[in-house]
Amino acid sequence: VDAVEIIRAKRDAAPLTPEQIDYFIAGVTSGAIPDYQTTALLMAIRLRGMDARETAALTDAMVRSGVRVDLSSFRSIPVDKHSTGGVGDKTSLILAPLAAACGAIVPMMSGRALGHTGGTLDKLEAIPGFRTRLTLDEFRASLETIGCALIGQTDEVAPADRTLYALRDVTATIDSIPLISASIMSKKIAEGIGALVLDVKCGSGAFMKDEPSARRLAESLVGIGRHAGLRMHACITRMDAPLGRMVGNSHEVVESIETLKGSGPRDLEDLSVLLAARMLELSEAGAPARADQSASRAAYEARVRDALRSGSALEKLRQIIERQGGDPRVVDDYALLPQAPHRAEIRAARAGYVTRLDAGSIGEATMALGAGRATADDPIDPAVGCRIVAGIGDRVREGDPVLEVSYSDAARFERARGVYEAAIAIGDAAPPPVSLVIEEIGDR
Amino acid sequence: VDAVEIIRAKRDAAPLTPEQIDYFIAGVTSGAIPDYQTTALLMAIRLRGMDARETAALTDAMVRSGVRVDLSSFRSIPVDKHSTGGVGDKTSLILAPLAAACGAIVPMMSGRALGHTGGTLDKLEAIPGFRTRLTLDEFRASLETIGCALIGQTDEVAPADRTLYALRDVTATIDSIPLISASIMSKKIAEGIGALVLDVKCGSGAFMKDEPSARRLAESLVGIGRHAGLRMHACITRMDAPLGRMVGNSHEVVESIETLKGSGPRDLEDLSVLLAARMLELSEAGAPARADQSASRAAYEARVRDALRSGSALEKLRQIIERQGGDPRVVDDYALLPQAPHRAEIRAARAGYVTRLDAGSIGEATMALGAGRATADDPIDPAVGCRIVAGIGDRVREGDPVLEVSYSDAARFERARGVYEAAIAIGDAAPPPVSLVIEEIGDR
Repeated sequence: VDAVEIIRAKRDAAPLTPEQIDYFIAGVTSGAIPDYQTTALLMAIRLRGMDARETAALTDAMVRSGVRVDLSSFRSIPVDKHSTGGVGDKTSLILAPLAAACGAIVPMMSGRALGHTGGTLDKLEAIPGFRTRLTLDEFRASLETIGCALIGQTDEVAPADRTLYALRDVTATIDSIPLISASIMSKKIAEGIGALVLDVKCGSGAFMKDEPSARRLAESLVGIGRHAGLRMHACITRMDAPLGRMVGNSHEVVESIETLKGSGPRDLEDLSVLLAARMLELSEAGAPARADQSASRAAYEARVRDALRSGSALEKLRQIIERQGGDPRVVDDYALLPQAPHRAEIRAARAGYVTRLDAGSIGEATMALGAGRATADDPIDPAVGCRIVAGIGDRVREGDPVLEVSYSDAARFERARGVYEAAIAIGDAAPPPVSLVIEEIGDR
Repeated sequence: VDAVEIIRAKRDAAPLTPEQIDYFIAGVTSGAIPDYQTTALLMAIRLRGMDARETAALTDAMVRSGVRVDLSSFRSIPVDKHSTGGVGDKTSLILAPLAAACGAIVPMMSGRALGHTGGTLDKLEAIPGFRTRLTLDEFRASLETIGCALIGQTDEVAPADRTLYALRDVTATIDSIPLISASIMSKKIAEGIGALVLDVKCGSGAFMKDEPSARRLAESLVGIGRHAGLRMHACITRMDAPLGRMVGNSHEVVESIETLKGSGPRDLEDLSVLLAARMLELSEAGAPARADQSASRAAYEARVRDALRSGSALEKLRQIIERQGGDPRVVDDYALLPQAPHRAEIRAARAGYVTRLDAGSIGEATMALGAGRATADDPIDPAVGCRIVAGIGDRVREGDPVLEVSYSDAARFERARGVYEAAIAIGDAAPPPVSLVIEEIGDR
């Protein structure tokens, strides 16, 4: 085996053997294969593709580049959720305590914001004191004590993925379904889960703009997970408008807490309940036969709604914050979260009904305020963000506020203002309601 | 302009603008663009291609990455020949003195052997003392004094090409017509010529295996040269069998001298005369109108044959050797060249006519003896090589010698023997003679 041979094979559209993939990932991890060979192969993969077998082998090699956490001693199957990223998507902050409050073991390793989509770690770090860098021992101890831990990828987990991701970022090789799939799934498999619920976002604010590509990604991820022995369930959900009403890091913490208090926006609550119910379903062994599926699903959803209503999920969030060094009083006093000094409203240019709040544009504008990062080293401003005052279907008069923007820097706001304005469309009639969930692809 | 944007554009099969290409080559030259971005772009170019305009802009940027020698003070147009490389192709050693003896100015910058094709520099360095590393001042002084200089690429000439070539070699991106074309032409344009004759080899011993790809390469090279204001002429010639009867560095020096003495093999002499005549034709301004072309060509060929017969071309070689520090007595005493200690014969397995002497296999076998290099750092053994005893169409009895192999290392010879044997085919009838020249593509 030899790096040039491997590059040549993929260049010529041949499938790589597991041995070739192992050799390559081992070389990337040890540094024996120089970056300039790695990026040539990444571009060949981007342009020639990889089949399901290659993608599974790539994922497996990336898992083996580091530690795979052993969580097999838990009674139920440890379960996580992964979202491919959207604007206003704060479901992890809601789901993790919700599923854990229902008894699930939720080892959640998350990422940071990149581009216009938010990152769970950045949101959590808006909470004063919250530590996302736990050791693997602390991670396990949290799971044993409170059933949940929300952390960043540790250095021991899938180190090959970090190297590959950094190189993909600077060589226009991010948007490759096999590379995305292996990157996501290697980290998830390595964190020790036995089941995974995927939320594959589809639309202007998502990485996948159309349903066929979202479906391909979902199927690729599900296939890899099954190949690794995980129980898998994927929901393909719309991301044409922001999820919920708040975008920006401390804004989204507030909305997550509100949702756990039972006062969240309907779309966010419903999706959180659905995903948490699917997590419970996957994590509990001896599930009912297919014939009983819909009754069984209704029962899981009812359990999750009970955890919301009873306050036990909110209490679980408090425990998580406390355990990870954060100030749990934020649950009751949002003023403890970072606050931006300035506010401005984006107003309706005409009377009518809000027909569009483009997620991609709102994500970009909010990133421009400082909520996200264009490159991995950019600092985040946790305080900035926007709140949707008039949602899709709401009636507005000319001059009514549609968005309320919180900002720190006037020049940045001026650059973002036009992007916010362009995100809004107002028509003569309310658009028909659409279901957030497009499709589910699952094990049962 | 930004490197990732450029990579993304080519990844998506967009043509690059001259500004993008300039930015990239300037960054490669200065080191501002890291190798891992360069190789991602090279793979994208390998898989997506470049049109004629992009290839010309790439060549131009590579020329401007270093010095372009100014030879405009010479009375005639400085002219060079470039061969895309074949087995036994020693025409440069013959042509350069031949054309210079006819009054042409021949500034010839050549390369080294890589793979199974020979390199002019390695052949010249088989001559004791011969220096191929001249400064640009020495280069110019040689041209002024004797009309010819045979040197390697200096550090000042097309430095971007050296970086790109080294990276292409380790990333399976060598075999791209635009990249090959820009690499060849940037060095040739930078050496200060105003006219170039190309010998594009086609067949098992060449880089281009079939006529359509040889034609594409020839047209790409001619197009770039014209775009840069050069007079261009290309010959597409067969490389299914070795050119001449000798393969290996000192072997080829001997055969070149024999040819300049008028005792060379017919195919080699004819091709050398043809290429030298085309060089003269391009280098002399005010050439006749197209109607007189064939008479004019016959006249140029006659002048070249005169230079061979009169001994003036041989005398010119002696001057070149002397001027570049070599021992000119080799012209009369081949024993001064490196001699291999062992000889062996590869014999006819049956009686009949030699129908095939596969150039690719003979090249590989001779490389395996030490005549060539698999990687750029391999040492060369100038003494080893092989001589064709029975050429294509010759009648042999079973056990007659077909090849005479000179080697230094018995183990290497044992590995090469089977490859030599497999190169030979013997049939019941002599094959029909084929013309070496397949096609000419020229300015006039």
